[in-house]
Amino acid sequence: MSLRSWATVVLAIGACSEVLYFLYKTKVHQRLWSHFVASSATRKSTIETARSLDVFHQVLFFPDKERACPDFFLSERGCGRPKCPFSHKVTNFSRMVGHILKAKQSLDICMYTITNNDLAELVVKLHERGLVVRIITDDEAMNMSGTFIGKFRRAGIQVRRDYSSYLMHHKFVVIDGTTLINGSFNWTCHAVNSNNENVLITNNPEIVEPFIAEYERLWEVFDPAKRPP
Amino acid sequence: MSLRSWATVVLAIGACSEVLYFLYKTKVHQRLWSHFVASSATRKSTIETARSLDVFHQVLFFPDKERACPDFFLSERGCGRPKCPFSHKVTNFSRMVGHILKAKQSLDICMYTITNNDLAELVVKLHERGLVVRIITDDEAMNMSGTFIGKFRRAGIQVRRDYSSYLMHHKFVVIDGTTLINGSFNWTCHAVNSNNENVLITNNPEIVEPFIAEYERLWEVFDPAKRPP
Repeated sequence: MSLRSWATVVLAIGACSEVLYFLYKTKVHQRLWSHFVASSATRKSTIETARSLDVFHQVLFFPDKERACPDFFLSERGCGRPKCPFSHKVTNFSRMVGHILKAKQSLDICMYTITNNDLAELVVKLHERGLVVRIITDDEAMNMSGTFIGKFRRAGIQVRRDYSSYLMHHKFVVIDGTTLINGSFNWTCHAVNSNNENVLITNNPEIVEPFIAEYERLWEVFDPAKRPP
Repeated sequence: MSLRSWATVVLAIGACSEVLYFLYKTKVHQRLWSHFVASSATRKSTIETARSLDVFHQVLFFPDKERACPDFFLSERGCGRPKCPFSHKVTNFSRMVGHILKAKQSLDICMYTITNNDLAELVVKLHERGLVVRIITDDEAMNMSGTFIGKFRRAGIQVRRDYSSYLMHHKFVVIDGTTLINGSFNWTCHAVNSNNENVLITNNPEIVEPFIAEYERLWEVFDPAKRPP
């Protein structure tokens, strides 16, 4: 064969080998790419799940130094007083109330005693807006001076209570079946501005879900229709 | 040019383009690979961080149906009674006590009222073992019937209390500066076997650290040496 013929054969073999190598690499690359894309998708999904959960823990301590203005924080019309004696700055009480105000569907309240006017009015308002509000309380505490249980019942809110000489001593609320407020804090005025108290607010399912289950259990246990006459 | 010459040129151009394409793909592939490897490393590191923290949340509800045998759960010699009237099975009280028994260094107790004999004896035992035990309690509750505050002070445990007509209403304990026990649960006998109560136990720093800071703040605020005479 001539030199040209040899060159042609060498080039042809070279070209073929490159084509074969390219095909091989493309396949490996595709597998690699699909693996990478899958990993990205998994990560994206994990991040999105975390974001959609957006797990948070907020710890609040009381007493607040100042009383949060109920009109400023709870009323649509705001506070009109030019010399309001209460705080228009964020307090731990207004932070806690902020979570309750976000409720869209339901409020499950399990509270030893409710004598705080601001919180009681907020609960009635949310009930009037159409939220499903349920209250579990202590049978002795519901008859104490300053209790709002009668007001809740007159407003049409369902209230259940224990049937025991012992205490229904919980102090927790579940908002929309997702956010828990719990701690030492009863819904009294002293709890806000006088006592040493703590409140944990979280949407961590590991913490919230056992409280939801306990609420449903107590709601059934305290159903007056299931009591012997 | 002859047909062979044309074929040689076409093959040469084809081979060169393949070589160039291969080089380009290799570079992209390398970049892709390094990205993939880096992502794997990030994921691994995140998982390892989570593992090293080993964050847990445990929610316990009371009352327990049975009383946990204090000898079986708290005493080194165990329970010798052949017909012990108390439970040797795990209860929520024994679960909670299990966390306190793991304490190696310190126990910071911030409790409205302590009238539970089993818990009081456990605290004195841990103090005698050399753990740093501190107690913050309520000034009215510390003088109530059945309180163990006197016993703690006689045992040499530091106790501080509020100076207020309002309540030091917390019910939390920090174990070894890492694990928090908190909820509605006072250290009374009724809390264990009669009342409806909740306890959250966690080592999540987001939750524990604010309680540690609040404990240190209250410890200073309630220092009797800093009170006016």
